[in-house]
Amino acid sequence: MKLKMVGLGKMGFNLALNMKDHEVDVEGFDVNEEARKKAEESGIKSYETLKGLVSADQKDVIWVMLPAGKITNSVLDELSGLCKKGDIVIDGGNSDHRDSLKTAKKMEEKGIYFFDIGTSGGVYGARHGASFMCGGDSEVFKNDLQEMLESIATTNGCLYTGKTGSGHYLKMIHNAMLYGYMQTLGEGFELLEKSEFDYDLEHVADSLSKSSVIRGWLLELAANAFRKDPDLEKIKGVVGASKTTGWTIESACELGVPIPIISTSLMMRLRSKQDDSFSAKVIASLRDEVGGHKAQSK
Amino acid sequence: MKLKMVGLGKMGFNLALNMKDHEVDVEGFDVNEEARKKAEESGIKSYETLKGLVSADQKDVIWVMLPAGKITNSVLDELSGLCKKGDIVIDGGNSDHRDSLKTAKKMEEKGIYFFDIGTSGGVYGARHGASFMCGGDSEVFKNDLQEMLESIATTNGCLYTGKTGSGHYLKMIHNAMLYGYMQTLGEGFELLEKSEFDYDLEHVADSLSKSSVIRGWLLELAANAFRKDPDLEKIKGVVGASKTTGWTIESACELGVPIPIISTSLMMRLRSKQDDSFSAKVIASLRDEVGGHKAQSK
Repeated sequence: MKLKMVGLGKMGFNLALNMKDHEVDVEGFDVNEEARKKAEESGIKSYETLKGLVSADQKDVIWVMLPAGKITNSVLDELSGLCKKGDIVIDGGNSDHRDSLKTAKKMEEKGIYFFDIGTSGGVYGARHGASFMCGGDSEVFKNDLQEMLESIATTNGCLYTGKTGSGHYLKMIHNAMLYGYMQTLGEGFELLEKSEFDYDLEHVADSLSKSSVIRGWLLELAANAFRKDPDLEKIKGVVGASKTTGWTIESACELGVPIPIISTSLMMRLRSKQDDSFSAKVIASLRDEVGGHKAQSK
Repeated sequence: MKLKMVGLGKMGFNLALNMKDHEVDVEGFDVNEEARKKAEESGIKSYETLKGLVSADQKDVIWVMLPAGKITNSVLDELSGLCKKGDIVIDGGNSDHRDSLKTAKKMEEKGIYFFDIGTSGGVYGARHGASFMCGGDSEVFKNDLQEMLESIATTNGCLYTGKTGSGHYLKMIHNAMLYGYMQTLGEGFELLEKSEFDYDLEHVADSLSKSSVIRGWLLELAANAFRKDPDLEKIKGVVGASKTTGWTIESACELGVPIPIISTSLMMRLRSKQDDSFSAKVIASLRDEVGGHKAQSK
């Protein structure tokens, strides 16, 4: 099959290489000249404009792999103008599923099939086998996309999730669950590290990753981290956060589903980015006012 | 080697059978006649009294596998009187590591080697390969226990954790992390179930268990559960809790380690056991008082 990749950055370029390995005739577009050059050197024909990429008369399958939000939305908007009836447009980024629902509506009006495909597995996965959570028309999925996606996915990594929006929604929930898992491991390992015992955290993580009830890949990654830096002395305890878990909290409020773990995991990441906490200052000052417990001075 | 199992219940009996399969000459004791009979039928010699189990002159290795707390502590106390210098006593239960530290001290005074071995993997693991987290004297561990433990453990399932207390402490933290993981999955899957999309939760769990960043055994178990009962209609959302995560919270307070996820996971289990919540009633009544938002009547 023929596929056109919009965005030849780390994810898009590696997905394109992965597709090339699996008999996909892949072409691409990127605003960045360097990215286009790199693609050309790997035998991926590239276009300087989005308009140039889209065929005038042949059916197109276009995969958009760009930073979520404004950039993706504006490109999808442009594509809804450029594409033809019967074309397939995929958003493989971490888009807000509410945006995907809007995009799908716009595309649908023109007879374009829109798919929201949550993509997991990072750059390594993009190149060697990622995990795809795919929302969109089930018939078109089966006939036009499934075989290609399965060829570039890791084992069991191609999941049709239902109607449009369901792919990005599941990816969002997956990310939120990752926040909960990570915060759990953070808390557990801090207790082990601060305890009166002298654990070899690499060995602990390695053993738990293989033989315990919580065994899994994250504990393998933890063992790797402790192998490189046993007390994580080189790492500052500051954790970034993308927008997806905030969206999850919004969704939970709408649905009336209590998610204390997921929301607290996000809050603890925000806390990790503060050198000092105004909230803690307020409490310290109140504790002084209430009980005469002297607040520490700067 | 020769080993004596105290407690021939589900865990003790299955560990004994596992040992028998691995060339351990295992004998046992249980207060329950039925349990003793079952053991004898499987070729495990059993004693009617703890005193009868302990040799007068030969070196003993005794594994206590009883419910944590009073029963285990009283048996360990009795053993500290019955055993001889050079004997090895193992507590394989889910004991409070603070109790293990006390027991170790008492045993040490008599020259008995005490090991606290956190055992994970349930009844299936006990029979076919469990995970052991072993605290105690490192030389005695290497010389007298390691080979036997590795033979009855799952792959990578035998971890020497350091001095006495460290085995049960790690097991406690492992259990606490399991609470966090479980609560995370609970929240994520409730969002999927309540969302506007129509997910096949079995397929979602199965795919995530194999190909996602949070892949691991718990998601496989979740897939099993959804296979049997797709909407969990037959299950009441009431979750029990053992004492270990409460101990973890105590430890965190002592060590000054914030563990919001682990503690909230326990609190959410307590909440699940309430039909109504007095705390929520208080808030509903205050919301009425403050803002005139009428509280619902019974």
